[in-house]
Amino acid sequence: MAKAPVLTPQAEDFPRWYQDLINKAELADNGPVRGTMVIRPYGYGLWERMQQDMDLRIKESGAQNAYFPLFIPQSYLTREAEHVEGFAPELAVVTHGGGKQLEEPVVVRPTSETIINEYFSKWVQSYRDLPLLINQWANVVRWEMRPRLFLRTSEFLWQEGHTAHATYEDARDYAAHIHRNVYEAFMRDVLAIDVVPGRKTAKERFAGAINTLTLEAMMGDGKALQMGTSHELGQNFAKAFDTTYLSKEGKQELVWQTSWGSTTRMIGALVMSHGDDNGLRVPPRLAHIQVVVMAIKGDDTVVAKVREIGDRLTAAGIRVKVDDRTDTPFGRRAVDWELKGIPVRVEIGPRDLENGTAMVARRIAGGKEPVALDALEALLPKLLEEDQELLLTQSRERRESRTSEVATLEEAAEVAVGGGWARIPWADLGPEGEEKLGEQSVSVRCLVAEDGSVPVADDAPGTVAIVARSY
Amino acid sequence: MAKAPVLTPQAEDFPRWYQDLINKAELADNGPVRGTMVIRPYGYGLWERMQQDMDLRIKESGAQNAYFPLFIPQSYLTREAEHVEGFAPELAVVTHGGGKQLEEPVVVRPTSETIINEYFSKWVQSYRDLPLLINQWANVVRWEMRPRLFLRTSEFLWQEGHTAHATYEDARDYAAHIHRNVYEAFMRDVLAIDVVPGRKTAKERFAGAINTLTLEAMMGDGKALQMGTSHELGQNFAKAFDTTYLSKEGKQELVWQTSWGSTTRMIGALVMSHGDDNGLRVPPRLAHIQVVVMAIKGDDTVVAKVREIGDRLTAAGIRVKVDDRTDTPFGRRAVDWELKGIPVRVEIGPRDLENGTAMVARRIAGGKEPVALDALEALLPKLLEEDQELLLTQSRERRESRTSEVATLEEAAEVAVGGGWARIPWADLGPEGEEKLGEQSVSVRCLVAEDGSVPVADDAPGTVAIVARSY
Repeated sequence: MAKAPVLTPQAEDFPRWYQDLINKAELADNGPVRGTMVIRPYGYGLWERMQQDMDLRIKESGAQNAYFPLFIPQSYLTREAEHVEGFAPELAVVTHGGGKQLEEPVVVRPTSETIINEYFSKWVQSYRDLPLLINQWANVVRWEMRPRLFLRTSEFLWQEGHTAHATYEDARDYAAHIHRNVYEAFMRDVLAIDVVPGRKTAKERFAGAINTLTLEAMMGDGKALQMGTSHELGQNFAKAFDTTYLSKEGKQELVWQTSWGSTTRMIGALVMSHGDDNGLRVPPRLAHIQVVVMAIKGDDTVVAKVREIGDRLTAAGIRVKVDDRTDTPFGRRAVDWELKGIPVRVEIGPRDLENGTAMVARRIAGGKEPVALDALEALLPKLLEEDQELLLTQSRERRESRTSEVATLEEAAEVAVGGGWARIPWADLGPEGEEKLGEQSVSVRCLVAEDGSVPVADDAPGTVAIVARSY
Repeated sequence: MAKAPVLTPQAEDFPRWYQDLINKAELADNGPVRGTMVIRPYGYGLWERMQQDMDLRIKESGAQNAYFPLFIPQSYLTREAEHVEGFAPELAVVTHGGGKQLEEPVVVRPTSETIINEYFSKWVQSYRDLPLLINQWANVVRWEMRPRLFLRTSEFLWQEGHTAHATYEDARDYAAHIHRNVYEAFMRDVLAIDVVPGRKTAKERFAGAINTLTLEAMMGDGKALQMGTSHELGQNFAKAFDTTYLSKEGKQELVWQTSWGSTTRMIGALVMSHGDDNGLRVPPRLAHIQVVVMAIKGDDTVVAKVREIGDRLTAAGIRVKVDDRTDTPFGRRAVDWELKGIPVRVEIGPRDLENGTAMVARRIAGGKEPVALDALEALLPKLLEEDQELLLTQSRERRESRTSEVATLEEAAEVAVGGGWARIPWADLGPEGEEKLGEQSVSVRCLVAEDGSVPVADDAPGTVAIVARSY
């Protein structure tokens, strides 16, 4: 008898599969206010690991954490013209505080360029204060009309970096450093997602930026997801907030700035990149539970052994969860760990103990076989490394197999609508072609150079546009 | 010639000294919206260390982190009558989102009992789901009429724990565990603040709780500061949100709950507990910079040596900052590190190098003397441990020397108004006496037992009230 599937199969209805998985793997729930989200402990555990790893990389890049207020005076937003135009439709506005109507309404931060520049303009006095490299971990609010858990939520969690530099070159290089050495390295090496680094077209740029660098990934259904962006802000905010410094030569100069962000959307990317019809598959380097050691039955010897092996594996540096909840049927627990995407299950019952073995079940590579108990410490780290690589390989292979080189706008649209990525010379598409693609809900995800590097300008020779539908 | 003091002396004007210190040690700035705060990198570094340490203790207590939405439907607040009465005057209300007026206004969370109970009521089904132990690190907003940086801000950062239990006893014991084994242990062992654990009187209880446990500390001016609270919520929120579970016996029962919080206010406590006329003094176990190694002059040999020693001390497990910014005068840098309260400065100039020594200046114990360079690794950890203990001793001695046993309400008020703590039998004061004290801005900070333990009830025999002015 075939089991009823736990999740709607991907092939049947990908968005429904996604929603099912988020729900059944206990990653998140919808919040009571439209578009908001409750991140459940298992989902938040993934976010905590992302934070820890990224925070280290950000600090190694010289930035320090700080915290700026949630509430921004409405007037700040309007100082940078493009910025306010970009964000005005998404703002949440507080009109009452402490039982009274406020004299000036305040907005809940959609991003913090404006309020941070207000302080940069006070803190930066001389060239000695530069570069000023600040990051914050915070919640932001952008009112969302078509919310989807993790991907588009009215409130989300993120880190936002904000920096000020003495020269254009220094700012440009720092934005590029974050783009490649922090974001791309993290997404590739830890999330095991084969992201494509590129630059956004003028149309897709961050509101207020002179250049937006992006990382785009292909999801399981062939659509693109923007994974993180790093912006060169030029002197736009510096002008609006008068953020200047006294140069070595004794002249008052405007600073050059960057900002860069990555969000809880990365959890959605993880799901849609690595998930399958049985649930999530978490890359071992990210996983806060890499191995679950399960007692099949509530036999005292088994439970004692399971705990002992849990301790041994923990001592060996593996992140382990012991599952000895034997009052819940084994099958139900196994399905749950599979749904949650724990890379390896070590299953132990009375018969295994007699043989001195455990069943090792692999969520990522697949397969299940008996392993001698005293061989686990040596074997598991190897399996986990293999699994990590396999996920990245699968991510790359999907992107490659579903990407087509095309020559015309029509072909590009056809590929994108069919669930793939099209590569087309930007010179053959251009801003007009980009507009036309928009009519079919297709967009230019990013511009790349022929050799896979990031072009220095939109019109650099050999620039290729990656065209796709996107989340 | 006497130097002009960097800070207003404590004895002259304590609140002004506090404000000066926060500003000059670069801990925080006032935000643009009244009552909000910008936490600068040095101040945020203190908070990060607090978070790391507390988070570990919270996880060891079995709680898992999660994240609930910032926005709460206004109607949720009103479901628990005392709760809404307590918080209504402090709410920030969002009336517009995405360019439209909202059908139901939403409040920015002042605390999350209501929204969390909405989900607990879905997640908790059977006794197997209990206890449910959740914590979140988040920002909250309580509109503040008389803001003061870190102590009272309209937005602050905190952790809030929320738990559900099958029995009254289990909830009570968990609230007590957090109170003593997490909060008190952290504040005493890491913050080096001699906190007093006690229970709040009915008047001072959290809105919606049946019992509030508190930790009170004496600040440098003899006033009290509430450092953290742990509440038994009884079944108040469970009733309001219908949070029930199926018991082993197959009956539907209401859960018993706790909540507990500690905030960025602890940074203010640190300043007012350990600060002196030269600035902050950071307990070494908390300090993210324990030792600063300073180059006195920009001599190449000196700078190289300073960096080498920095690396050596880092390798020895000390949290070190190398200060080789020799284009800024040495004296100004030394005053800055003193202001910031770095426990130990290792100062190295050309003459020290000739002698193979460094000057070791101690911010907490005081004094400055030459130490052989190769003796630093062995010596510094000892000095840091001494400093940690000294701060706790000074905190305890201040509290003891400024606490008086009194017999009447009048005496209690006199002690409190004079900048001390009064201890008076609760049976002699009672709720009526408590009301009268309020007229002189004096309050009962907490109730303690004669042996220093926490009384099991307000009217337990031998209960003593601690009476003081407070922040």
